[in-house]
Amino acid sequence: MDRYRPPDALEFPRFTGIRTFMRLPHVQTTEGVDVAIVGLPFDTGATFRVGARFGPEAIRSASALLRPYHPFLRVNLFEHLSIVDYGDAPVAPGFIEDSLRRIADVLSRLTLAGVIPIGLGGDHSVLLGELRAVAAAYGPVALIQFDSHPDTWDAYFGHRYTHGTVVRRAVEEGLILPERSIQVGLRGPIYGPGDWEAARDLGLELLSAAEVRAIGLESVSRRILQRVGDHPAFLSFDIDFFDPAYAPGTGTPEVGGFTSWEGLSLLRGLVGLPLVGMDVVEVLPAYDPAGITALLAANVVYEGLALLAARRRDGLPRVATLGARPEGL
Amino acid sequence: MDRYRPPDALEFPRFTGIRTFMRLPHVQTTEGVDVAIVGLPFDTGATFRVGARFGPEAIRSASALLRPYHPFLRVNLFEHLSIVDYGDAPVAPGFIEDSLRRIADVLSRLTLAGVIPIGLGGDHSVLLGELRAVAAAYGPVALIQFDSHPDTWDAYFGHRYTHGTVVRRAVEEGLILPERSIQVGLRGPIYGPGDWEAARDLGLELLSAAEVRAIGLESVSRRILQRVGDHPAFLSFDIDFFDPAYAPGTGTPEVGGFTSWEGLSLLRGLVGLPLVGMDVVEVLPAYDPAGITALLAANVVYEGLALLAARRRDGLPRVATLGARPEGL
Amino acid sequence: MDRYRPPDALEFPRFTGIRTFMRLPHVQTTEGVDVAIVGLPFDTGATFRVGARFGPEAIRSASALLRPYHPFLRVNLFEHLSIVDYGDAPVAPGFIEDSLRRIADVLSRLTLAGVIPIGLGGDHSVLLGELRAVAAAYGPVALIQFDSHPDTWDAYFGHRYTHGTVVRRAVEEGLILPERSIQVGLRGPIYGPGDWEAARDLGLELLSAAEVRAIGLESVSRRILQRVGDHPAFLSFDIDFFDPAYAPGTGTPEVGGFTSWEGLSLLRGLVGLPLVGMDVVEVLPAYDPAGITALLAANVVYEGLALLAARRRDGLPRVATLGARPEGL
Amino acid sequence: MDRYRPPDALEFPRFTGIRTFMRLPHVQTTEGVDVAIVGLPFDTGATFRVGARFGPEAIRSASALLRPYHPFLRVNLFEHLSIVDYGDAPVAPGFIEDSLRRIADVLSRLTLAGVIPIGLGGDHSVLLGELRAVAAAYGPVALIQFDSHPDTWDAYFGHRYTHGTVVRRAVEEGLILPERSIQVGLRGPIYGPGDWEAARDLGLELLSAAEVRAIGLESVSRRILQRVGDHPAFLSFDIDFFDPAYAPGTGTPEVGGFTSWEGLSLLRGLVGLPLVGMDVVEVLPAYDPAGITALLAANVVYEGLALLAARRRDGLPRVATLGARPEGL
Amino acid sequence: MDRYRPPDALEFPRFTGIRTFMRLPHVQTTEGVDVAIVGLPFDTGATFRVGARFGPEAIRSASALLRPYHPFLRVNLFEHLSIVDYGDAPVAPGFIEDSLRRIADVLSRLTLAGVIPIGLGGDHSVLLGELRAVAAAYGPVALIQFDSHPDTWDAYFGHRYTHGTVVRRAVEEGLILPERSIQVGLRGPIYGPGDWEAARDLGLELLSAAEVRAIGLESVSRRILQRVGDHPAFLSFDIDFFDPAYAPGTGTPEVGGFTSWEGLSLLRGLVGLPLVGMDVVEVLPAYDPAGITALLAANVVYEGLALLAARRRDGLPRVATLGARPEGL
Amino acid sequence: MDRYRPPDALEFPRFTGIRTFMRLPHVQTTEGVDVAIVGLPFDTGATFRVGARFGPEAIRSASALLRPYHPFLRVNLFEHLSIVDYGDAPVAPGFIEDSLRRIADVLSRLTLAGVIPIGLGGDHSVLLGELRAVAAAYGPVALIQFDSHPDTWDAYFGHRYTHGTVVRRAVEEGLILPERSIQVGLRGPIYGPGDWEAARDLGLELLSAAEVRAIGLESVSRRILQRVGDHPAFLSFDIDFFDPAYAPGTGTPEVGGFTSWEGLSLLRGLVGLPLVGMDVVEVLPAYDPAGITALLAANVVYEGLALLAARRRDGLPRVATLGARPEGL
Repeated sequence: MDRYRPPDALEFPRFTGIRTFMRLPHVQTTEGVDVAIVGLPFDTGATFRVGARFGPEAIRSASALLRPYHPFLRVNLFEHLSIVDYGDAPVAPGFIEDSLRRIADVLSRLTLAGVIPIGLGGDHSVLLGELRAVAAAYGPVALIQFDSHPDTWDAYFGHRYTHGTVVRRAVEEGLILPERSIQVGLRGPIYGPGDWEAARDLGLELLSAAEVRAIGLESVSRRILQRVGDHPAFLSFDIDFFDPAYAPGTGTPEVGGFTSWEGLSLLRGLVGLPLVGMDVVEVLPAYDPAGITALLAANVVYEGLALLAARRRDGLPRVATLGARPEGL
Repeated sequence: MDRYRPPDALEFPRFTGIRTFMRLPHVQTTEGVDVAIVGLPFDTGATFRVGARFGPEAIRSASALLRPYHPFLRVNLFEHLSIVDYGDAPVAPGFIEDSLRRIADVLSRLTLAGVIPIGLGGDHSVLLGELRAVAAAYGPVALIQFDSHPDTWDAYFGHRYTHGTVVRRAVEEGLILPERSIQVGLRGPIYGPGDWEAARDLGLELLSAAEVRAIGLESVSRRILQRVGDHPAFLSFDIDFFDPAYAPGTGTPEVGGFTSWEGLSLLRGLVGLPLVGMDVVEVLPAYDPAGITALLAANVVYEGLALLAARRRDGLPRVATLGARPEGL
Repeated sequence: MDRYRPPDALEFPRFTGIRTFMRLPHVQTTEGVDVAIVGLPFDTGATFRVGARFGPEAIRSASALLRPYHPFLRVNLFEHLSIVDYGDAPVAPGFIEDSLRRIADVLSRLTLAGVIPIGLGGDHSVLLGELRAVAAAYGPVALIQFDSHPDTWDAYFGHRYTHGTVVRRAVEEGLILPERSIQVGLRGPIYGPGDWEAARDLGLELLSAAEVRAIGLESVSRRILQRVGDHPAFLSFDIDFFDPAYAPGTGTPEVGGFTSWEGLSLLRGLVGLPLVGMDVVEVLPAYDPAGITALLAANVVYEGLALLAARRRDGLPRVATLGARPEGL
Repeated sequence: MDRYRPPDALEFPRFTGIRTFMRLPHVQTTEGVDVAIVGLPFDTGATFRVGARFGPEAIRSASALLRPYHPFLRVNLFEHLSIVDYGDAPVAPGFIEDSLRRIADVLSRLTLAGVIPIGLGGDHSVLLGELRAVAAAYGPVALIQFDSHPDTWDAYFGHRYTHGTVVRRAVEEGLILPERSIQVGLRGPIYGPGDWEAARDLGLELLSAAEVRAIGLESVSRRILQRVGDHPAFLSFDIDFFDPAYAPGTGTPEVGGFTSWEGLSLLRGLVGLPLVGMDVVEVLPAYDPAGITALLAANVVYEGLALLAARRRDGLPRVATLGARPEGL
Repeated sequence: MDRYRPPDALEFPRFTGIRTFMRLPHVQTTEGVDVAIVGLPFDTGATFRVGARFGPEAIRSASALLRPYHPFLRVNLFEHLSIVDYGDAPVAPGFIEDSLRRIADVLSRLTLAGVIPIGLGGDHSVLLGELRAVAAAYGPVALIQFDSHPDTWDAYFGHRYTHGTVVRRAVEEGLILPERSIQVGLRGPIYGPGDWEAARDLGLELLSAAEVRAIGLESVSRRILQRVGDHPAFLSFDIDFFDPAYAPGTGTPEVGGFTSWEGLSLLRGLVGLPLVGMDVVEVLPAYDPAGITALLAANVVYEGLALLAARRRDGLPRVATLGARPEGL
Repeated sequence: MDRYRPPDALEFPRFTGIRTFMRLPHVQTTEGVDVAIVGLPFDTGATFRVGARFGPEAIRSASALLRPYHPFLRVNLFEHLSIVDYGDAPVAPGFIEDSLRRIADVLSRLTLAGVIPIGLGGDHSVLLGELRAVAAAYGPVALIQFDSHPDTWDAYFGHRYTHGTVVRRAVEEGLILPERSIQVGLRGPIYGPGDWEAARDLGLELLSAAEVRAIGLESVSRRILQRVGDHPAFLSFDIDFFDPAYAPGTGTPEVGGFTSWEGLSLLRGLVGLPLVGMDVVEVLPAYDPAGITALLAANVVYEGLALLAARRRDGLPRVATLGARPEGL
């Protein structure tokens, strides 16, 4: 079977060519495709700094540095996966509900065809569109969220759809299984104790930054795997999980965050996870003068791809697509 | 009468103190106030780069460099004007119609009390809120717009309220007198000839960048004064009137623009203009690494203040506040 | 009693409003005030890079991201403290002795009224003005200094007042209790062994970066608490305590420094400390392209506020103001 | 006939999608194509700052702001031209002669098929590859060079191929008609009078910056048109023609340069020019913090496209492709 | 005679070597030296942004781009001048009177030996040290000042020595001949009409930016030459003469300024001027993200060197060194 | 004996003077010199981002912050070492084999005279020139390489000399003793398992980032000392060993890297190492907006100098210079 893969970097230097993710073919098909990278350039849901609409461009640009073989997981992505850059979902800047519908539409075409979508945000509000699309194919999923914020407020400025309310909406819409979901890395000043209790009240597990450090990285990875079990899982990675030293280019940075090594180690501990989708969000290039945030985000995607490749290498089954789309999506 | 003015810079160095505009008192009153600076930190109307919500902060910061006396117009602002920094209008990021209502509400309190508002944008969509407020006090006004774009599209991404449709909406709402209004400085690639003809079809006069250069700066100022006559006038200055060399920090920059000297000269040629309000918009600090855009924007406001002061120095009458607010505003 | 607190961020988005610290009221009173944030925009004491006069502006801007509740110390600042932004002390750039006097004057008004001052530097020379003011109210205090440099030289370029000599001057002026004081985090190339021995000769305890790492963060916090006992304490935080990766925007950066998590953890270990004043200094925005230094500095202040709030929550007594100002201050 | 054009910006916002030039289809065909944009990401020929290999990426990114209709030339590009983004020529960084061969190979495929190539540099050494390709199709061409340097040295550091020797090599290889060629905008400190005389000795006309200002922009455009006549012409635009205020992101900036308006006006005066190829070179994004250089470069390409479109609109003949490739190319 | 000149750029690429001005020998001698470049890294006199202490480093770095031959004045610097980089004057940051003495000391050694000093600032307060040194050798001199500010206040923050009072001090100390001196380019908001009248009251001629534009560049150059006559002249060039678009990296930028071409043209019109010293001041690298300010400053020095070389080429006499140092210097 | 050392910083502030390394004398002699800092401004070997030719300038500039005494190793550099800044090796940009010869020539003059060279890169390809020079004096040496990449490919883009092939070339040329050599810190996506196996196949020991973290920093230092034994050793430090948060300014950054404290600790564990040469490479200032990469690189050199000084302080013998240059170098 023909597979999609990047050009040979020893012939076409990595700084050449149109900036797709990892310089993969930009093809809008589901035929012969295992994974599709999709830009979600939407940022109207942001409540402080804006500009994450340029996140996909920056992550794609930085991804030129990635190479096919993961030396720690010992897997070559393209021996196991056919990957394309599907381009961007069409969005309507300034109009969040309309945009979430458009995102869900585009991604549902992928998920219903058995293609695993990897979203490049965009602010975290895009998660709702993504979850609608994976739920359309798999029913409610486990949500693994790396983040410094729980995003479970009910409303912001009197409105229900923002990057700070997206997880509550997802629970309300029945898109995730709270008892299989977990939020990791929370920290930073909040409005009140209810900000975090709300997530727990919704049924999610919540590991604060202090708890992560107290129990250790390996335990955290294990706990995530146990929490999820063999349920289809969506991994949502808010780049503000990392400390601003590592990821300055984001909309609501929180100090006291994690190093790149810590974040990558957590992901590397998730081998076997039954992933059906993933994203990295809140990359804001205008505040990323040296481009290190976008590079780190590209590597987060890379770790996700390596998890998918390792699962196939290890002979684990693909997660089944239900093929049944809940009404109203 | 007590008047509002900045602290003495020879005692309190200009880099000290809370960053209000020109370090003016931050007072939310209309009592004893001639002019109120108001931040309009809204940017959901932007169609390309976003982040103008931080424009007011940047302009205020840069305005610390301004001093009270204008050597070319030979006028001291504070001998003729009592000026405050009113703070920011409350806005709801992500929700344009709601925000325009809030802006109009805050500014109407000023205009109906005879205070001249000077808005610090924010993207150009805020103009609609401003014009509702001045029209509430004066009826429809003459609009003098320095800009590289006419902002007269009907819709964008299927929606009617954006920074590219604001002038058409203003005409439709009866907030401006097209036959007394003029757009100056248009240039740059457009979608089709209709982009500019639309403005003319609405009744506005339109001077392209090429026309401005052909007829000369002094003629342009004279033509503006003639067009406006003695009608109450609102001056809206989109910072992208200037070339990106002078104003890189903006959302939709257009090359081939004007120098700072050209822009200031045009404004200085408007002595006598019956101004009832003003703004400077589309300042986007995240793309302004050396802060020159914000400094230029602060100087544009300064020229407007000097025009107001010169008019009073010259004994010209204050423009009457009608005191009658049209329905629905 | 009426208390000072920020506006509600769910109604007034955090990016709106005049940039006071945490958007607190800018009020120059001591009435009903527990804590006053005071900008100390002075940088003539700096010996390498200059520009910390813009530090207060940058810290205030970044502090808009802070929220009232501290999830790890489980305390809401504004349930226990009434806080204002007092504005900046007037300084005379280029004239250090004059400026230190002005700083001491302004801050003494606060300390003598029982208000706890929190200074936003400015270079570290401002500490002398601050210590004069707290000593005026409490007599000599314990100094807790987080820093990569001891600042205990005798002179620099033949002059006695700079940011590198301030602690020696404070000891000489009898403003601090050396046997209750401690310097934490020292590192980096120095002129000779005497640079650090001088601090010890003055009676201060000194924990180098290597010692901090050897004994562990919790032990360091405990040692600080023991050293101070129940003496009134002033906490001075030089932002160059952190590694340049976390705090690039400073005047004399030293590599091999601490992470934000380490710094915040040390502060969180100080619950119960009898604080009577605090500062964060050496923030230099012109070298802070992504603003992460200012954000970290704002969080350092936040931790100090949380310590003060926690002490009140726990029913610990306010440290008594002596009301007697030593001569010559 | 099907034609290549960008997506509709009112449906797909300009900040979305893979970053091809103007978001044009990325197609590597000559079928149904009038003009092909080709990235030439090579910078080993640079003698001072390097990094122009990232020029094509930056120009493509900035070109998202361009729209189809040119209001001053009154022409819609896509009514007259089918345009694609052909991607980048493969180059071997560090190996100039090899890379020039690869560039000539790729571009010859285009020119021999009658497609007009527009190169995005890359340093100016790429011009030699481009000229080999156009000469392969048309024989020697007229060269119109906007530049602050003549690039006619014989060798640099003892080597013959660099961005400072490219025009001499082109004359030696018989790729250009010196008597039909002209260099415009020269200025800046040079090694000796021979630097400029060399160009004249080779038979080129040379207009220094002082001469351009003395005779006026319209005269310059006329003189270019007269010089070229109806010979096939290649327009090479070194972005350092502009002043560093307008184009800071370049390898050997020269102060005292031209404004964007001046540069665009010169190009707009060339309606009717028989263009067979074009480039914009020496864009160095790492020195372009606000992106204004790349935006200006994108607009230079846009003006070239508009000249081509206007020529077709006006019914002027396509320049004939000779179909005969000189030996050794 | 052996002469000092830079290494051959065709053998030693311009980006190599220790960063002296134009890569000239760093020699602290007056033997066989016509001109000495001297860094004056002092910035305690600045009243707004600080950091010009790093100006000399930045100007030296940018000067690597300069080459020996001036194509418009048709002169090779090193055929007529032996030039060294003398290094920096020792200064005491924070202590202005002390530093001005040290500057005058170092420079007097040069002027009394007949060497022409060219100072690289530093803030404008260094001018007083420079003028003391030239007056020591020549008696009072003509001052030609390109600037947006007259720098003739009496005091600032109650102190007499700052970058805003330096020209008044120079007149009071008898260092300049007011009736032979001229200030060119003034503009920007001021405190009152007295700010400019003060300069006229001191006897200086003053040409505002508006006047320069009204009479034209050539007339301005002629007027300067007439004003100076054959008196020894010191040319002081404050980089804020240029618009912030051209020179963002400065301490008190003023919009509405001059282009690089305008500034260089004015200087090129001064052939024959009897220069005995020169400086370029107020370059502040921390606000110069693309380095264009430093490059422009290096070119200003280059124009001064070319004027000196042209004067020798034309056989004009060297200005005599009086050899008599006024008392008290 | 006279020794070379920096000026006294208490008299000549650290921001003054020509930017040599640590402001050391710029002398091109081997007389009375123990260590010579040599810039190697070459970057044609780079395969992704370029511009490391400006690395030496940036490291020298940052090194002004260094002081003579190392508080953790308790040694004053200049009590034991006479150090000069030798300037830059002449290179031919764009021509790698030629440049490597020139580098080897210059450095051999030093090594054969018993002077220890410390190279400031430049891209990592310069290592080949350095190793030729040390091998000329000492025969093959032990290579200690801190790096995220092994640099042991055979060819890149069909060419044999790049920064990715340099170590293989060194082995082939017999310049290093593989069985005494070690690479530390490898990580990041690679092309295949062979990328790392190649280094092992060549006989080098290889410690990946994961292995370093698993065995601990002290064990790594011990293992290096054991591996080297008393063989002459060259320490090559690629700045991309550090995480991009600490060293953003580099050509091929890899996330998941080391902190500055970790890197410095590893170096401090190497007391006693028989160093005969050293470098720090791949510093790319154009991507280092706050200058922290260059500062860290300067400190890496500083640690190397301290190791050399400590070895002398401890009475360990100088490593013998063989005086015999292998043929063909």
